Amino acid sequence: MTVADRSADIAIAHALAEAAGAAIRPFFRNRFDREQKADASPVTEADRAAEAAMRAILEERCSEDGIVGEEYGTVREEAARVWVLDPIDGTRAFVTGRPLFGTLIALLEEGRPVIGVIDQPILHERWTGAEGERTRFNQGFAGVRHCAHLAEAHFGSTAPAAFSGDQLDAYTRVTQDARDAIWGGDCYNYGLVALGQLDGVIEANLKLYDFAALVPVVEGAGGVMRDWKGQPLGQGSDGRVVALGDSRLLEPVLERLGG
Amino acid sequence: MTVADRSADIAIAHALAEAAGAAIRPFFRNRFDREQKADASPVTEADRAAEAAMRAILEERCSEDGIVGEEYGTVREEAARVWVLDPIDGTRAFVTGRPLFGTLIALLEEGRPVIGVIDQPILHERWTGAEGERTRFNQGFAGVRHCAHLAEAHFGSTAPAAFSGDQLDAYTRVTQDARDAIWGGDCYNYGLVALGQLDGVIEANLKLYDFAALVPVVEGAGGVMRDWKGQPLGQGSDGRVVALGDSRLLEPVLERLGG
Repeated sequence: MTVADRSADIAIAHALAEAAGAAIRPFFRNRFDREQKADASPVTEADRAAEAAMRAILEERCSEDGIVGEEYGTVREEAARVWVLDPIDGTRAFVTGRPLFGTLIALLEEGRPVIGVIDQPILHERWTGAEGERTRFNQGFAGVRHCAHLAEAHFGSTAPAAFSGDQLDAYTRVTQDARDAIWGGDCYNYGLVALGQLDGVIEANLKLYDFAALVPVVEGAGGVMRDWKGQPLGQGSDGRVVALGDSRLLEPVLERLGG
Repeated sequence: MTVADRSADIAIAHALAEAAGAAIRPFFRNRFDREQKADASPVTEADRAAEAAMRAILEERCSEDGIVGEEYGTVREEAARVWVLDPIDGTRAFVTGRPLFGTLIALLEEGRPVIGVIDQPILHERWTGAEGERTRFNQGFAGVRHCAHLAEAHFGSTAPAAFSGDQLDAYTRVTQDARDAIWGGDCYNYGLVALGQLDGVIEANLKLYDFAALVPVVEGAGGVMRDWKGQPLGQGSDGRVVALGDSRLLEPVLERLGG
């Protein structure tokens, strides 16, 4: 297998992250807007400003590529290459002043995420994943940690209410046999898996723009990302997501989730 | 009422925070220890190192004051002045690499918290509250935001499992009538109330060292802290805590908590 040179596309993804961060930072912990206007929240304004800034760069530099964005919808979805943008993943974290939200940027080729960026613009932390390459964290590299046994594993998930139906029961079957579990975190949890700080993240009801960028980050750090049936994640996935630092956890986790 | 000059004690509290931060930072996101030793976790080592460093300063500079610490217990508890130390509030956050844990330092006089510090040593964010003074945040001041109506309020609480018995139901009675609620956060949530980013935090089963430092921070920023019966918090409190940015929320919140 020939490994593609993705440096040009990684440079574009970084330009998108820079533009989004510059658009977002003025709104973080900014109380002026909430008090002045009832009709637009700071997070909505930050979301829109960041996505507009990213789309402007893509229209100039990759005008044949498709774009899927949380705020402004889809263009050229049938293109072989599609950029998937979530300007602010972790809206509640942003709104309440926690610097653990993230800007998510992915490049899909034929529906498969091949580049992914998680950018935290307040802490200036950035994870960059690309198929066939080691995941970078800021100026260095990210790497998962070993965790052979579920009983040793620390899990994270954003909120109980983000699960529906019997999904919370399924998640609880995993965590009751694990070492520990923490709530909150959004995309930042997946970055912590890539850094070897968390062993797993399990979520459901995610959209393509919520998870596409996470796949190259986690897998390039040595981890594995799948849906709850153990299938690779991509454009057609159902939004149920498992990220694990150590692939030996995949079987016991999927067994408890019950697909 | 004469307002005491607390500048000397605030300087001591800041010295404690500096010493704790210096002790904690080498352990944060440090994977070496977990892999080498099964018998001591990095968080335990960081906790102990930070508390030992703080106690050494207190024994030198305030040798007649009492000390209550999470790790090393109590000395001179009957003293009129007692320092209350929690080197790492938010153990799960620390263990999983989230920079939202905090070092909590309080000075109690006759059982009442009169100085409180929340220090986040990774982000270098520090809240300093003192009775009768405006709460400081880093080099500036902190201040709550107005929120007259429960329906507009954003709440935070660390974890559903931290409530016991029917306490989670009580919390849910509040949040279902509120604008939104977020999980995770530990002491950082109270700092966000003081910064006007969150409107309330409701928790239970807290120890004195978990909440004593929070009271001067939240109240000096214009907010209110009480137990679930509406009583002021201090040495004899039962660990059920309400922090609100706007005291107009106290009545509707306490009514739903059902004391």
